[in-house]
Amino acid sequence: MNYTAMDMQQLKDEHARVLAQFEDLKSRGLKLNMARGKPGKAQLDMVSDILKVMVEPEQCVSDGLDVRNYGELSGISAAKRLFAELLGCRESQIFVGGNASLTLMYDTIAKAYTHGLLRSEKPWAKLDTVKWLCPAPGYDRHFAICQSFGMEMITIPMTADGPDMDEVEKYIKDPAVKGMWCVPKYSNPEGIIYSDATISRIAAMKPAAPDFLLMWDNAYCIHEFDGDFVPFPDILSLCEKAGNADMVFEYASTSKITLPGAGVAVFACSEANMEYMEKLLTIQVISYDKTNQLRHVLYLKDKANTLALMKRHAAIMKPKFDAVLAALEREIAPLGIAQWKTPKGGYFVSLDTKEGLAKRTLALCKEAGVVMTGAGATFPYGKDPHDSNIRIAPSLPPVAELEQAMEVFCTCLKLAALEQLMA
Amino acid sequence: MNYTAMDMQQLKDEHARVLAQFEDLKSRGLKLNMARGKPGKAQLDMVSDILKVMVEPEQCVSDGLDVRNYGELSGISAAKRLFAELLGCRESQIFVGGNASLTLMYDTIAKAYTHGLLRSEKPWAKLDTVKWLCPAPGYDRHFAICQSFGMEMITIPMTADGPDMDEVEKYIKDPAVKGMWCVPKYSNPEGIIYSDATISRIAAMKPAAPDFLLMWDNAYCIHEFDGDFVPFPDILSLCEKAGNADMVFEYASTSKITLPGAGVAVFACSEANMEYMEKLLTIQVISYDKTNQLRHVLYLKDKANTLALMKRHAAIMKPKFDAVLAALEREIAPLGIAQWKTPKGGYFVSLDTKEGLAKRTLALCKEAGVVMTGAGATFPYGKDPHDSNIRIAPSLPPVAELEQAMEVFCTCLKLAALEQLMA
Repeated sequence: MNYTAMDMQQLKDEHARVLAQFEDLKSRGLKLNMARGKPGKAQLDMVSDILKVMVEPEQCVSDGLDVRNYGELSGISAAKRLFAELLGCRESQIFVGGNASLTLMYDTIAKAYTHGLLRSEKPWAKLDTVKWLCPAPGYDRHFAICQSFGMEMITIPMTADGPDMDEVEKYIKDPAVKGMWCVPKYSNPEGIIYSDATISRIAAMKPAAPDFLLMWDNAYCIHEFDGDFVPFPDILSLCEKAGNADMVFEYASTSKITLPGAGVAVFACSEANMEYMEKLLTIQVISYDKTNQLRHVLYLKDKANTLALMKRHAAIMKPKFDAVLAALEREIAPLGIAQWKTPKGGYFVSLDTKEGLAKRTLALCKEAGVVMTGAGATFPYGKDPHDSNIRIAPSLPPVAELEQAMEVFCTCLKLAALEQLMA
Repeated sequence: MNYTAMDMQQLKDEHARVLAQFEDLKSRGLKLNMARGKPGKAQLDMVSDILKVMVEPEQCVSDGLDVRNYGELSGISAAKRLFAELLGCRESQIFVGGNASLTLMYDTIAKAYTHGLLRSEKPWAKLDTVKWLCPAPGYDRHFAICQSFGMEMITIPMTADGPDMDEVEKYIKDPAVKGMWCVPKYSNPEGIIYSDATISRIAAMKPAAPDFLLMWDNAYCIHEFDGDFVPFPDILSLCEKAGNADMVFEYASTSKITLPGAGVAVFACSEANMEYMEKLLTIQVISYDKTNQLRHVLYLKDKANTLALMKRHAAIMKPKFDAVLAALEREIAPLGIAQWKTPKGGYFVSLDTKEGLAKRTLALCKEAGVVMTGAGATFPYGKDPHDSNIRIAPSLPPVAELEQAMEVFCTCLKLAALEQLMA
């Protein structure tokens, strides 16, 4: 029965029942984690043959280059070819980095502050105010970068098609607005794919800031867990066609394709940006780990083979998402206290409780031994204006543990809702 | 015969003879490289078994942690233990990074600019002037970092004991002087080991800047090629004892122990600095490649085993340095046109020509197909005030090629000297 339709006695009875369940769950001393988008052990084991593909000196040569030695700032050609094929851009637009796209993103913004970007009038460190557009709910680590550099974050509502472009187009008239985060495919946490219309509007933006930085984090570009690969447009070409070639930096990595801690990350940008960034990057690094780059090329081979591997990841991931969604459907749907998205890719289920329930729900979860992403984490400054959004990350625990964790989660959400309704 | 004792006719005769040699060498169409401290193929092959030590999922667990997944910002404990033993500091003082100490050094300075260091009053980007002490001849990539951030570099003369500390102690009275580069063991390029007295004086400095940053690049800490391992003091303890615990960051890497492009780099600092830096670094990176960190632990094991490996590197390196020094001794020593150091470790031979010969010598080398580190590169802004210092990097070419390259080099140096004497 829908909680909101209950009278006080019904609420009290239900509260007593749910509280007893909660106490029982608490007494089990669980230690479960649905906090981060970490692949599970089955996924790691599945891809660990990557450790075997390059073990002899003769295997360490690529296009005539010995990858073991110093050199080749922007990465090996074979890796550039692979990522250019995956992202649909030109090889000359790819820079192959280390194990983390987060680091590449941070470094781009850090360089904007210390040196300025290609079209900057001065380094951002010399400006009084830097403002940044943050579609939310979004990725907490993106917002943490903005906060660390002291930016003024502006929350942009998310729609079913992506960021609310009316809002975006309003704010970019301010020359202090220097950039924007986007996770265009299977957005973190909602799992939305930006519509073609939204992407075209983004590519054609005319920001007042000459050095506006569109941070296109294509973290889940081939990360379907339900259904076939969904093609996506090449943002670099779209920006180029709209006269915005130098506005965008795209990021991707193999962190959720091969090994999360030992993958290969790339950024892609216009050739003019590449030339500018290489001049700055050559001061910071001789080259990232080309041995690991070649290891990835030998293991992943090409787009077709990589997509086939993603199907095997999907076979592990889908039952986990099914378990989460089934629990929500069964336990929460009838009660009228929350709504959620049903994604077909990415690493998260985004759930919105009735206003004011997220913090309390997650505090109760913690009490019962289930760690989730902190309430508010999906909003700038960690502050969800409605205290409502909860990011569920089903990938790490095995299905049996996940079912336990979801039992705890649903019980805590019910308890929080009942407490509020009774107050 | 000493060139400076020759009369004009003797000089002309010698010039004709050497020019003919030069033309002969040029006609051979050589393509040889003594520009950078790159290990040679024999060294790479010798250590490539590192690619075989971790190929099964079961091998990817260290102290109970699956290194393949996300997490552990500061690196795996086993790698911290190994580097703490090598550097003689505490495990809690070690941060294990990616494949390049250069990147860790750059990032420390970048964070000083964007966020400030532990004891900074404000980020350096907010200061009008940042000055930096550069013992020279020194490492060109160090100076390039300073230049990239727009620092005012102050050249400190090198003595046989390390940087001229009278000069250092004079300059640090200026609060705008924010730091200093040091390569304390087998300095780049001279191969000098700083004396204990110099190191003590450095550790006990009392700079006016509260956030003075002593950049202790221990790049060649175990890199003897001639004779046994020479122990070195732990700069962190020395600074701590002198009340300067937070003044120093030490850097090291396995780039010249295992694979140059796929090694593991670390920084070491006080626990207070570590806590501060981790708060900043957690925004930039989830963790560096822990799989490669464990690969290194499994391959290098401990200090004793690592020193044994360095003996095997030495067996490859020493004949190369011998070839360089023998050529200089035979061809150049009698002429009175240059002096050089005879190092027992590191990657370079530093040679000082008579004033005004370095650029011309290297231009001639280039003409004859031998690429060397650019003249002036070992000084701030690439400007050697005496146009005299030349860095010879013997590690990359096999001995036979090296002998050819040195034949070219000696011929070019002679030619440059003769041209000058005849002018």
